[in-house]
Amino acid sequence: MTSSSYLETLRAVINTQLDRLTDYPAAVPPRLKEAIRYSLLQGGKRLRPILTLASAEMVGGDPAPAIPAACALEMIHTYSLIHDDLPAMDNDDLRRGKPTSHIKFGEATAILAGDALLTEAFAAIARTSDESLRAPMTATLAEAAGVFGMIGGQTDDVIGEKRLSGGSRFDDRPSLLRSIHRRKTGALIAAAFRLGGLAASAAEEQLQALAACGEAFGLAFQITDDLLDVTGNERLLGKRVGKDAGLGKLTFPSLLGIDESRAEAARQVEAGRRALDLFADSAAKSAIVDVLESTLTRKN
Amino acid sequence: MTSSSYLETLRAVINTQLDRLTDYPAAVPPRLKEAIRYSLLQGGKRLRPILTLASAEMVGGDPAPAIPAACALEMIHTYSLIHDDLPAMDNDDLRRGKPTSHIKFGEATAILAGDALLTEAFAAIARTSDESLRAPMTATLAEAAGVFGMIGGQTDDVIGEKRLSGGSRFDDRPSLLRSIHRRKTGALIAAAFRLGGLAASAAEEQLQALAACGEAFGLAFQITDDLLDVTGNERLLGKRVGKDAGLGKLTFPSLLGIDESRAEAARQVEAGRRALDLFADSAAKSAIVDVLESTLTRKN
Repeated sequence: MTSSSYLETLRAVINTQLDRLTDYPAAVPPRLKEAIRYSLLQGGKRLRPILTLASAEMVGGDPAPAIPAACALEMIHTYSLIHDDLPAMDNDDLRRGKPTSHIKFGEATAILAGDALLTEAFAAIARTSDESLRAPMTATLAEAAGVFGMIGGQTDDVIGEKRLSGGSRFDDRPSLLRSIHRRKTGALIAAAFRLGGLAASAAEEQLQALAACGEAFGLAFQITDDLLDVTGNERLLGKRVGKDAGLGKLTFPSLLGIDESRAEAARQVEAGRRALDLFADSAAKSAIVDVLESTLTRKN
Repeated sequence: MTSSSYLETLRAVINTQLDRLTDYPAAVPPRLKEAIRYSLLQGGKRLRPILTLASAEMVGGDPAPAIPAACALEMIHTYSLIHDDLPAMDNDDLRRGKPTSHIKFGEATAILAGDALLTEAFAAIARTSDESLRAPMTATLAEAAGVFGMIGGQTDDVIGEKRLSGGSRFDDRPSLLRSIHRRKTGALIAAAFRLGGLAASAAEEQLQALAACGEAFGLAFQITDDLLDVTGNERLLGKRVGKDAGLGKLTFPSLLGIDESRAEAARQVEAGRRALDLFADSAAKSAIVDVLESTLTRKN
């Protein structure tokens, strides 16, 4: 099986499960259900959950025990997009080529749908059939998504210090930018690898290798995200470009220039690939490496 | 020890723990930390966490194992207040006598602080020292706070059907109102009792009695909340009154009148008290009953 058909199989598993998980009965308000499914089932790349399933298979041979955690990750990622798009945050009206949640459903529903996805992510993990996995998976997800991870990075990105001043928590602008990216994007991607490892009962050394791969990949992914905002095609991306510069955001291209940003992304992909040396060759490992390398040529 | 000094002792335990849990190092953005602590440490009644600790003591004699879950409940409650107060939701500018989070810190920070508290609530439970409690507590909290519980009720209250129309999910307006209150307020209060029971390794019969008490109490509490919006003193309440009528909200006073609402609250308190017949008398039980009964005379 080629990597692309392997990845497509995993993507189909995730899409089916996300559909099932949110096929709520009438006790759930229909408008809330509609808003949740509108954002969750709109055909994202499923990057994080795919990495979770492939990591589980690379370590232990069976991706099934990782499915609830993989879905939880995608729910957390989706909630973060809904809330980030709000007028008070990035004020985006387009996401994956469609109106953002608050444009489609109004701000109140968008806030509630985001809150619901965040909460239901933890509910999904609480229903993992292997009871011994529930607590460590909850801890991994909460840590990656919380004040030390995604929300902390998002805060520094949106409302925190964008420029250095006296008493800054950071030495220089590259340190600040790396720290934001490591938390805002990298933490959840590193969690994707780690959750796959936990589902496959990985040894501590393996978990650390997975996390290292995830951190490198997360940084590469965010650098190319910054690059796409400068060089990308709005139609292919399904969202507005050129927004970062307009908002005066600190980005890799603005800090290092386009060429050096590309070189840095390539170095991170290489570091991510090397972190997987620990694992024997397999279809799952090849697919992960392909995902890593495709970051450098991605168009959306 | 009188109930009031017993309750004061539990409240002090909770306040100390919430302070410790959010005393984040500099890795957490200072403004996010400030917003989290501003809303969390502003001297609420601590009703839910107190009920959790007292329930644990009533069942098992030791409230200590319930402390992380009690704190998690208060964090969930606080996040829901921050998000409910947002301009797109209830648009409140005053809470506990002080400016609401978005007035004080701006909307972006208020949204992020709410998201952070919701996430960190699950992180707190993931750190419960007794590992066997983590998974059932996470499940209880997620279910009470999620689409079948608090967020579902809040959605029907804020943006859902406030009046019945063809194809409604509810038979009549009292059914709709009870359903909203049961989910929006009752679910988290029932979870408070249940989490205390879980921490004390309660038997299933005991857990059901605790949940029944919590549901009755939650309804009584929400009815008196509705009444205070009509008859309450703004200074004592620390928030605006008369808002429900202005928003055309479905409330018990608007549906049943003030006298019948008071009678219904009294009936619920009595039902809550009776649900505790299963448990032997103790200082903890007396304190819970006092909390139940004080609902009928509360001023804030």
